[in-house]
Amino acid sequence: MKRSEVSQAQERAAQMLETNGIVLTEEEIRHIEVAGFGLGQLDVQGLELVTYVNTDRYCAKELVLFPRQTCPEHLHPPVGEDPGKMETFRCRSGKVFLYVEGEAAISLKATIPVGSEAYYSVFHEIELHPGEQYTINPGIKHWFQAGDDGAVVSEFSSTSRDEYDLFTDPRIARVPLIEDDE
Amino acid sequence: MKRSEVSQAQERAAQMLETNGIVLTEEEIRHIEVAGFGLGQLDVQGLELVTYVNTDRYCAKELVLFPRQTCPEHLHPPVGEDPGKMETFRCRSGKVFLYVEGEAAISLKATIPVGSEAYYSVFHEIELHPGEQYTINPGIKHWFQAGDDGAVVSEFSSTSRDEYDLFTDPRIARVPLIEDDE
Repeated sequence: MKRSEVSQAQERAAQMLETNGIVLTEEEIRHIEVAGFGLGQLDVQGLELVTYVNTDRYCAKELVLFPRQTCPEHLHPPVGEDPGKMETFRCRSGKVFLYVEGEAAISLKATIPVGSEAYYSVFHEIELHPGEQYTINPGIKHWFQAGDDGAVVSEFSSTSRDEYDLFTDPRIARVPLIEDDE
Repeated sequence: MKRSEVSQAQERAAQMLETNGIVLTEEEIRHIEVAGFGLGQLDVQGLELVTYVNTDRYCAKELVLFPRQTCPEHLHPPVGEDPGKMETFRCRSGKVFLYVEGEAAISLKATIPVGSEAYYSVFHEIELHPGEQYTINPGIKHWFQAGDDGAVVSEFSSTSRDEYDLFTDPRIARVPLIEDDE
């Protein structure tokens, strides 16, 4: 991802948070994480993250999704003595379509990213509106997409070790390479 | 505490959260915890809490403080194999004066509740504005007070076991008795 694309996404995410009454420090804005997953289509498959705290005991983040932006399917495996990340998504604004293992919805409210259909395999649908939340146990495959207005989601969890996340799509690199603009 | 006092405090807390863009479900509003600590002066020493999630691995709450309301001094001791609750306070709105062990401030920005001076003993001052946060390690005594406009504080932590909290004031009962109105 180009540095300019990262900056633009940071600014857009910061704006969405501000609109929803979530205050960040200047330093937090500069460090908003822009995850394009190495797929080169940030607006389709991507996620913006603010990590408030990540200790060896717990973690809290704010997730920002642009309209219809999708966080690709993945799971959190055991890491050493840690049974794997357990996480609670709480929708703060907008709408989120969350998919986990279980009985598949007959028709999906989300749109699977074109060309990546092979890498989406779980379709038990949970629709989250502001004030609603859902907890995902370790090892459970999941993916999620914002509705037409985007979404802000608070994530409360055990310790985050994103580098161990297992994505269904083998092309995905969770830790991004940021290139200087030419 | 009388049931009517609890209801009024719940309503007031829900209103403060709503004003600050934090959406709760109807059920969450009905279950807002009103902690008067058995002291009979809720507006002076008290705290309103929304617990979003509390698993054996992590916990997330929203804390509401009315103007100048104080959460009395306490610490989180080890419980069994748990080394004690570690918690991060993130100020969302208003202003919070937080006091922990360490070098005492020369003059305090908070006002110690009259008649309870003997039960406040740590005075290292941290002032939190919206977007600012502070992490408290297990076993560290702490107390906090909102500024003149009250405050909303997100608490991210390891598992909460409030019933084990150790308060400096021996008159305090963390788990309240709610009485029906006469």
